[in-house]
Amino acid sequence: MQKGRLEAFSDGVLAIILTIMVLELKVPHGADFAALRLLLPVFLSYALSFVYVGIYWNNHHHLLSGVRQVSGGVLWANLHLLFWLSLTPFATGWMGENHFAPATLAVYGGVLLGSAVAYFILQNCLIAVNGGPAAPLARAVGHDWKGKLSPVLYLVGIASSFVLPWLSGAIYVAVALMWLVPDRRIERALAHENPD
Amino acid sequence: MQKGRLEAFSDGVLAIILTIMVLELKVPHGADFAALRLLLPVFLSYALSFVYVGIYWNNHHHLLSGVRQVSGGVLWANLHLLFWLSLTPFATGWMGENHFAPATLAVYGGVLLGSAVAYFILQNCLIAVNGGPAAPLARAVGHDWKGKLSPVLYLVGIASSFVLPWLSGAIYVAVALMWLVPDRRIERALAHENPD
Amino acid sequence: MQKGRLEAFSDGVLAIILTIMVLELKVPHGADFAALRLLLPVFLSYALSFVYVGIYWNNHHHLLSGVRQVSGGVLWANLHLLFWLSLTPFATGWMGENHFAPATLAVYGGVLLGSAVAYFILQNCLIAVNGGPAAPLARAVGHDWKGKLSPVLYLVGIASSFVLPWLSGAIYVAVALMWLVPDRRIERALAHENPD
Amino acid sequence: MQKGRLEAFSDGVLAIILTIMVLELKVPHGADFAALRLLLPVFLSYALSFVYVGIYWNNHHHLLSGVRQVSGGVLWANLHLLFWLSLTPFATGWMGENHFAPATLAVYGGVLLGSAVAYFILQNCLIAVNGGPAAPLARAVGHDWKGKLSPVLYLVGIASSFVLPWLSGAIYVAVALMWLVPDRRIERALAHENPD
Repeated sequence: MQKGRLEAFSDGVLAIILTIMVLELKVPHGADFAALRLLLPVFLSYALSFVYVGIYWNNHHHLLSGVRQVSGGVLWANLHLLFWLSLTPFATGWMGENHFAPATLAVYGGVLLGSAVAYFILQNCLIAVNGGPAAPLARAVGHDWKGKLSPVLYLVGIASSFVLPWLSGAIYVAVALMWLVPDRRIERALAHENPD
Repeated sequence: MQKGRLEAFSDGVLAIILTIMVLELKVPHGADFAALRLLLPVFLSYALSFVYVGIYWNNHHHLLSGVRQVSGGVLWANLHLLFWLSLTPFATGWMGENHFAPATLAVYGGVLLGSAVAYFILQNCLIAVNGGPAAPLARAVGHDWKGKLSPVLYLVGIASSFVLPWLSGAIYVAVALMWLVPDRRIERALAHENPD
Repeated sequence: MQKGRLEAFSDGVLAIILTIMVLELKVPHGADFAALRLLLPVFLSYALSFVYVGIYWNNHHHLLSGVRQVSGGVLWANLHLLFWLSLTPFATGWMGENHFAPATLAVYGGVLLGSAVAYFILQNCLIAVNGGPAAPLARAVGHDWKGKLSPVLYLVGIASSFVLPWLSGAIYVAVALMWLVPDRRIERALAHENPD
Repeated sequence: MQKGRLEAFSDGVLAIILTIMVLELKVPHGADFAALRLLLPVFLSYALSFVYVGIYWNNHHHLLSGVRQVSGGVLWANLHLLFWLSLTPFATGWMGENHFAPATLAVYGGVLLGSAVAYFILQNCLIAVNGGPAAPLARAVGHDWKGKLSPVLYLVGIASSFVLPWLSGAIYVAVALMWLVPDRRIERALAHENPD
């Protein structure tokens, strides 16, 4: 029951984050395609962040599906993740409106990094209260190489934002693509545990 | 269970899309009816888009009610649909504020087209993981002539937006009216399958 | 199941309407209480509309709790109600920013009237698909004198907005107070039906 | 069932309050870190209010988990709490944009105080309809010293805002930290009642 309300609240916050980002796509004054073309960087940032928030919703969904217990610490680890994700609309809008300027790329990477670290903390909290490293959830999460590689790549992206801004942007896109392949580890492992 | 969270998240996003559109209806400076009259095109666009998002919610609701399984691919097909629908407030506001100018009509039609294609993809993903073309869901969806006719009409609307803008607008209204008749196919077919 | 998703979607839309209204309460430029005092009419409009949306949520909650069946028609009657309620933030902001000017009072009353009529239609649709006038739901709704009196009072409020604006405002407040007494009819009647 | 919809609606409103606050963090015009530094007070206010809304969600979640009955009065006590919390984005934005000016600190404290009193009323309503002071819920809530101390501290914060503004800010942060320790009283007491 507790878990149900945690999921419902997270779904609500993620749905709102996903949707209010589109408010940064401000209606232009002109009524022709030229006016629209100026919005292209904002639109591209929006699309990228939409994919990222979608990835978090997807992974959150998979992670929680293997969970039986939540604790007070889990509630706060989850709110911590939502805090970082709630900064996404701001970082997205700032990056889009400034055409991927170096500082905006660094801040966008910082928000991605903070979210990734917060997700990692949440995952570990959930494992701790769901049987520890030998239990189904921990085995389902497994080595989690994507979860470990992503923060390293974000750090490279942040570091390169003032030197090679295009590399920084390319890294953020590449990490999103890496995650787009849906995370079936937990599904598979749990199906294995409960084969009925 | 998975399906429940997919529905909850989609409901959240659709509810927010439906509601933030009204933010484009900006409070006018004057306090008389003349000030209000200037908002009429924005209001009409809002009403049309409200009906469209309502149609998608209705159809999504009916489609999912016949579903037993969701997969990673379904989650992304659903997010893809939500992405297109999330552009509706922008396209609506742009069209309304520019009094249905040609380019804005074309973009509005483009968002409708993208949403229709995304819905079609989602429907096919759901059929694929729910027993294929011979299973209840596929038979319930049936020939889906409305779903096949709509994209064609949107294309006509987009094409005519620079030649006969009024036709383009009339087509978008006509398609909405065509869908307003609620989609009882799935309800009926499933009731037939499970007559208890 | 269907009913559950109708409730969840309505809850989502009502929660957003309730909350985005506060966005009309724009942060003033000054940092003293004088700057705040200028916001008083906007704040009062917000408080009144918060109570109205709260009343609709409460009554919707009670009405649906006595419902067993929903139909395609019910889904649209519900969306029609949500459409009128979605205009509340606009009408509230316009009225507040113009210090209850006559035209804004008339439009506010018009939105209240539209919502009341839409609620009445929804109630009748629900009765029609839940056993008709002799079934528990219809008997629970009963004479519904509040639901019949409110539209009449809103009409008086609209009519008086250009003649006696204060009366118009007083009527809107009075109707809200009349409804604040929670609607226990349906609860009571259903408890009577299922005394276990 | 009734309780479920009360929780869902509250989750929706709290999720939106939490998320729209980030809209006050307006995208700056400059594209460097200097432009970002100007946003620091707004960011700090946002972080503090995020923690406060998170605390309310957490405590609401714990409180409701011990509840079996809701009444019409409870629905309104809950809406009253949501009203005060809905003023948080405004108070947060005003305080942040004016760099914690005295009047803004007093108003922020006033919103915290109103929310605390509203929570106290809700808690007492819930106890009254769930068996009174001798029942599990009342015993789970217990002495509630945090709930009694907080309003006193908010009053000290409000009083000191014009004399010692920094003390006022420090008090609001301290109360948040005091609550961050999750409220396990109800969990523990209920686990004791139903040891299975």
